[in-house]
Amino acid sequence: MRNRRVVLRSRPAHVPDRENFGVVEVDVPEPGPEQALVRNLYISVEPAIRPRLDGVDTYMPPIGIGEPIQSPTLGKVVQSNHPKWREGDVLFGFNNWEDYTIFSDETLLLEHLGPREGVPLSYYVGPLGGSGGAAYVGLHDVGQIKAGETVVVSAAAGGVGSVAGQIARIRGCRVVGLVGSAEKAAIVRDRLRFDDVINYRETPDLAAAVREACPDGVDLFFDNVGGSTLDALLQCMNMYGRIVNCGMIAAYNHGDQPPPVHHLWEVVARQLRMQGFLLLQTSHEAAEDLHDWVASGELIVLENVTRGIDNAGEAFSHLMAGGTVGKTLIELDLPEAA
Amino acid sequence: MRNRRVVLRSRPAHVPDRENFGVVEVDVPEPGPEQALVRNLYISVEPAIRPRLDGVDTYMPPIGIGEPIQSPTLGKVVQSNHPKWREGDVLFGFNNWEDYTIFSDETLLLEHLGPREGVPLSYYVGPLGGSGGAAYVGLHDVGQIKAGETVVVSAAAGGVGSVAGQIARIRGCRVVGLVGSAEKAAIVRDRLRFDDVINYRETPDLAAAVREACPDGVDLFFDNVGGSTLDALLQCMNMYGRIVNCGMIAAYNHGDQPPPVHHLWEVVARQLRMQGFLLLQTSHEAAEDLHDWVASGELIVLENVTRGIDNAGEAFSHLMAGGTVGKTLIELDLPEAA
Repeated sequence: MRNRRVVLRSRPAHVPDRENFGVVEVDVPEPGPEQALVRNLYISVEPAIRPRLDGVDTYMPPIGIGEPIQSPTLGKVVQSNHPKWREGDVLFGFNNWEDYTIFSDETLLLEHLGPREGVPLSYYVGPLGGSGGAAYVGLHDVGQIKAGETVVVSAAAGGVGSVAGQIARIRGCRVVGLVGSAEKAAIVRDRLRFDDVINYRETPDLAAAVREACPDGVDLFFDNVGGSTLDALLQCMNMYGRIVNCGMIAAYNHGDQPPPVHHLWEVVARQLRMQGFLLLQTSHEAAEDLHDWVASGELIVLENVTRGIDNAGEAFSHLMAGGTVGKTLIELDLPEAA
Repeated sequence: MRNRRVVLRSRPAHVPDRENFGVVEVDVPEPGPEQALVRNLYISVEPAIRPRLDGVDTYMPPIGIGEPIQSPTLGKVVQSNHPKWREGDVLFGFNNWEDYTIFSDETLLLEHLGPREGVPLSYYVGPLGGSGGAAYVGLHDVGQIKAGETVVVSAAAGGVGSVAGQIARIRGCRVVGLVGSAEKAAIVRDRLRFDDVINYRETPDLAAAVREACPDGVDLFFDNVGGSTLDALLQCMNMYGRIVNCGMIAAYNHGDQPPPVHHLWEVVARQLRMQGFLLLQTSHEAAEDLHDWVASGELIVLENVTRGIDNAGEAFSHLMAGGTVGKTLIELDLPEAA
């Protein structure tokens, strides 16, 4: 059995290129006591990987040259020495990008899934996985969303943003999405049913455009972008507004010189609360609600699936260039039967 | 009876100059029903005045050319039509900078004081007034300070910072102050008994200096400065650290081009909470504790008193140039007996 693994070949300068990644063949690992060998089926491709490619410490250590790329993956148990996991069980957790991987109780973000009938497994990597969990926890636990508020979501066509905006709509808020293309704007408005959408690439004054789209001001900003987007929104917040810092894509490709934010004075003047978070564990409530909304069709799932581990580097590069709609994931094509 | 009033003569370009201010003579106002005429004794000189001199809307409307400068003042009632205030009572509130002013129940930040025996009245403008209240509320209600934490305070020799750092010491924290001169460093270390102090003007790499002074990382940053100071501290915070944004002096003199902050990504990576606040009302608990600490000598009061309303503009200019130690206030010299 071959085990293919995606590794870092060279450090990207800004937007990663597929040449920064390579695929190597390694041995299929042997599960130890209380471990399981898992055949990965899906890999979550996430902007948060990007800072780890720069060789500096962030909340996780940097990925070294030749070392495996990591993010949440979903797979099926093929061999188990773990008392609670049987062959065929579906596990989710933070792992190497590879065909076969080891799960244990130590695996970060570990979930032993009980997928519902009729729900595609890939959904458990996106809206029913970390992306949906981040949107839910960010809006509720961090952002304390309330019905009737005005909510703005950046990267609104992305894996997290598309879910966050829909949750805000379901919670009875006015939702305005920020996107970077006309195609994304149409999807967010027409398919995801946001109240309004702004294509920032065609907007000379983003703050003015947000004020126009939000006549009652902005109560809650769910931000995946940072940089000039955050700078504009700081000037649109209502007194006591909350900014949920889920990510800062604008900074990731420029770790050497992150983009400036000038209007932090508004944090004082408007008595804002800005809070960053990393989804270390999702909640039972989030999982239940997200399942129900997906099942009822209230929550539309947008996926951007790349097939084949050989294309993983390119998929990540495309994501980081801002070219994707929906949750980006890799569907693994296995080289041979397990 | 003459009534002298400090007005804005011209808009400052960056650091205000005494020429930006003028003193005019106006009529002593007549108190209406449920109002009192108050003879001002002290004026609180505060950096927060600065943004209102730029002619743009902030949390309060801009001060127009020829209009009175405003901030909290303390004075004694000379004539009362208010059912609860008698001649000689001491009132505190947000008012014009003038000899005689009108207080009513509508006065912002209104406090009907019962000064304790032996406590100088001027203290009710500083550590027992808005400055102490901001330090107390900022550390407790916003910052949720806990014993044993490491707390960093910027503008540590200032009216708010000097109190904030001492409260943190009293609460059993390790306290490190940031100041802009050797004179201030000596006062903060020796008189106010901070654990350590950093003179940022002599520190090429502030983040490295803070990490050295805070071997366990920074749990709570009480920031009065913003800009590059905030940028440095973002790189020193512990996971789940809190940043209390009390003010941003670094931005006030440059309203046209506020200083950039580059490292907001740390808000996500370290799961920080940044929260701005304006002291709209202090708490009973704050007043009691601050009184007790001042009375016991645990809290040292640093005052920077300028005598004479004619010198008010110069005092404010000096404050905004970073030249002052302790709470800056004006003691009014009355032109004639009331």
